[in-house]
Amino acid sequence: MTADSPLNRWEQRTEVPLALASLAYLAGYAVHVLATGLPGVWRDLCLAVTLAAWALFAVDYAVRWRLSGQGPRFVRRHWLDTLVVLLPLLRPLRIVRLYEAVLRRRGEPRLSLHARVIVYAGVSTVLLGFAGALAVYAQERGAPGTEMPTFGDAVWWACSTLSTVGYGDVTPVTPLGRFIAVGLMACGLALLGAVTGSFSSWLIQVFASEGERTGEQKGKHGAERGAEAADGTGPPGS
Amino acid sequence: MTADSPLNRWEQRTEVPLALASLAYLAGYAVHVLATGLPGVWRDLCLAVTLAAWALFAVDYAVRWRLSGQGPRFVRRHWLDTLVVLLPLLRPLRIVRLYEAVLRRRGEPRLSLHARVIVYAGVSTVLLGFAGALAVYAQERGAPGTEMPTFGDAVWWACSTLSTVGYGDVTPVTPLGRFIAVGLMACGLALLGAVTGSFSSWLIQVFASEGERTGEQKGKHGAERGAEAADGTGPPGS
Amino acid sequence: MTADSPLNRWEQRTEVPLALASLAYLAGYAVHVLATGLPGVWRDLCLAVTLAAWALFAVDYAVRWRLSGQGPRFVRRHWLDTLVVLLPLLRPLRIVRLYEAVLRRRGEPRLSLHARVIVYAGVSTVLLGFAGALAVYAQERGAPGTEMPTFGDAVWWACSTLSTVGYGDVTPVTPLGRFIAVGLMACGLALLGAVTGSFSSWLIQVFASEGERTGEQKGKHGAERGAEAADGTGPPGS
Amino acid sequence: MTADSPLNRWEQRTEVPLALASLAYLAGYAVHVLATGLPGVWRDLCLAVTLAAWALFAVDYAVRWRLSGQGPRFVRRHWLDTLVVLLPLLRPLRIVRLYEAVLRRRGEPRLSLHARVIVYAGVSTVLLGFAGALAVYAQERGAPGTEMPTFGDAVWWACSTLSTVGYGDVTPVTPLGRFIAVGLMACGLALLGAVTGSFSSWLIQVFASEGERTGEQKGKHGAERGAEAADGTGPPGS
Repeated sequence: MTADSPLNRWEQRTEVPLALASLAYLAGYAVHVLATGLPGVWRDLCLAVTLAAWALFAVDYAVRWRLSGQGPRFVRRHWLDTLVVLLPLLRPLRIVRLYEAVLRRRGEPRLSLHARVIVYAGVSTVLLGFAGALAVYAQERGAPGTEMPTFGDAVWWACSTLSTVGYGDVTPVTPLGRFIAVGLMACGLALLGAVTGSFSSWLIQVFASEGERTGEQKGKHGAERGAEAADGTGPPGS
Repeated sequence: MTADSPLNRWEQRTEVPLALASLAYLAGYAVHVLATGLPGVWRDLCLAVTLAAWALFAVDYAVRWRLSGQGPRFVRRHWLDTLVVLLPLLRPLRIVRLYEAVLRRRGEPRLSLHARVIVYAGVSTVLLGFAGALAVYAQERGAPGTEMPTFGDAVWWACSTLSTVGYGDVTPVTPLGRFIAVGLMACGLALLGAVTGSFSSWLIQVFASEGERTGEQKGKHGAERGAEAADGTGPPGS
Repeated sequence: MTADSPLNRWEQRTEVPLALASLAYLAGYAVHVLATGLPGVWRDLCLAVTLAAWALFAVDYAVRWRLSGQGPRFVRRHWLDTLVVLLPLLRPLRIVRLYEAVLRRRGEPRLSLHARVIVYAGVSTVLLGFAGALAVYAQERGAPGTEMPTFGDAVWWACSTLSTVGYGDVTPVTPLGRFIAVGLMACGLALLGAVTGSFSSWLIQVFASEGERTGEQKGKHGAERGAEAADGTGPPGS
Repeated sequence: MTADSPLNRWEQRTEVPLALASLAYLAGYAVHVLATGLPGVWRDLCLAVTLAAWALFAVDYAVRWRLSGQGPRFVRRHWLDTLVVLLPLLRPLRIVRLYEAVLRRRGEPRLSLHARVIVYAGVSTVLLGFAGALAVYAQERGAPGTEMPTFGDAVWWACSTLSTVGYGDVTPVTPLGRFIAVGLMACGLALLGAVTGSFSSWLIQVFASEGERTGEQKGKHGAERGAEAADGTGPPGS
């Protein structure tokens, strides 16, 4: 894949507009769900913004499929994009890309691998948790026997689910609410995996570099520096 | 072990029939448990299908034991197969093998290691969660003070258990239901381990390849490519 | 430390007696707690057995301290033994050593690293869960507002705690019961760490061996064998 | 950064006073919250100690910023310090540094990497759990419908949250209490990641050293020693 292919140019040009559309999608949905005091026409407008953003993503998906010239394999290769088109609640994940694009434009060096994993996992979790709390709250608030009378309860429930703590003092009771909740649980598992995995690989890396140093610099002041290496994973030449 | 041993031939020939038997086992059990409105004769038929599938697996186990010529060591070496013969609820795990056999026949390349772990863990979790919810529901629905009046509640409980969230709004109350639940908890722990472990090893692999590249290609455009390497774990030569 | 030091000889000779004492300790405590129908004199006998086993461990600890000739550093170096002497509930952990001693006497090869970690974690978890359920049950059964009227409830609670699921349908209410419960939670965390860690390191090992093979045997039939390598981590020469 | 820079000298000299200030902060806050029977003047004094310690940290932060000469980048580079200045509840984390300083003064060798991670994670968890329980208890005890009438309940809740068990028998009900609880959940996730990550990297290290030995010493008594290597990760030359 050359850097000047039409597909690449399309992706570069649509990056910022699509990220803004994601924000508009999430904001429109949030206002539609939460601002129950608004006149109906405003809430309908918000819903229209949400649907328009969705349509935009579908168009982008179709254009990229066409430009890639890959036929049906495109659907499987870009399964995350396919999923995002089908499940609009996952759309906020695109905002993570915007964050990276902004960093790149400002000419700052890209973050280290572990910092990036932590930032991605953190931002994704916050966005998915917010979107999940919105969607579950929209389902649950009117249900008989609901345990989420306020949006604060829904956020509290989403936090306890994403951290896999699961108090159970607030739980969804409607079938659709529970279906979305299962998705949030899966996100919680993935978040746990990301946190644990980064920590584990960071430790292994620190350990390997400590081993190399004490091997290389034995006799000088290796032990002292090796011990310091465990506090920060700065480049070996610093 | 040569590729043409009788054991290998037996395993290749029975792969698809046994996988179909697994599906029949699960489907028969599901209909037997869920279709309470069916006439008794149909439910008995489903139970018969389930038991026949079980018998088939026992026969397969016996034949493979005989063909292996390993004597008692076979039981310990193939402890997973032994467990599946004893605990029929784990049988759906064989469907995972069918999926791989299908992939192979269609001539598609095998998935990468991490993709395979994720696919296996996902398929196993869905199948075991479904089988566990069925078995617990069969125990719990008639119990006094039950918290699972519908199968939907049992599925919701299974999801919250497998993700180790554990809300506790729906829990089994019968001894046998709790016994099966402990098995599901163990599956949840294993699932968590699989997700976390794949993530961790994937990160370590990405990190190692990034380190190699920046080491090898320093001076060219190493930093740029090293940064890209973190997004996809494609082969180093791509 | 030479293999013939008095400390080593002492440890070899006391291995089996101490493991039997651990079993007697656990069994005595279990009968003392559970057999409420027994005449008082039998329950007192069980308590005596438990205390005698405890005294035996204290004597063993003192002798080993003396033989080691390490002075106060012994307490910190053998902190696990110190903890076991202070907290008798952790004593069943010694049974794990008996299992290994038995394996060694029967001349069987020691298990692989991952199998050993899984076996140790599994056996420790079962023993600690049983001991924890006993201790918490002894505290909780008579408390006002107890949620553990039967020992089955205590076991169910211990399982949901050790897997970090934590339904919360059964929870300790007395201060001492909660104190022991916190210990079980820590064990659950450690168990999770052991399962996840073994899985992660197993995956990394499989991946490394797969990488070496495709590197070494490229051109032959490396891809096919490399793909097979992911199913079992047998030695490369098999 | 040279070892004699003013920044380094400042940090070395303020290490112990600041750690003592952290202890004073935590102790003052604890007495202020828990000793409800004290005359008002004493509780105000405790609050004053807490605020004075906070001011001390702000001064230290400002001095270090000035001495570093880094301008606005200091805030991002020392984000943990920034967070501690903003969120005083995280301040007890500094006590971990005191522990290390004490170890260094007594001339003892620094702990191994894994031991240090375990010790840091353990001490941080205990301190943060205590501070979190205090803060949540201060919010919750007077709330209508509170589930934490005593500080013991708050500690029990903090333990079940930090281990991600999450029984849900005791949960915060006020918005601010829940906000702090979300922070504790994040700590629980991090603790889980630290435990799992250390275990995973320890296993990988043991495995690598086992592999090297069996490779190097094949023919001698490599299998026996390789098997022993799994029990302790002592230096290869021992």
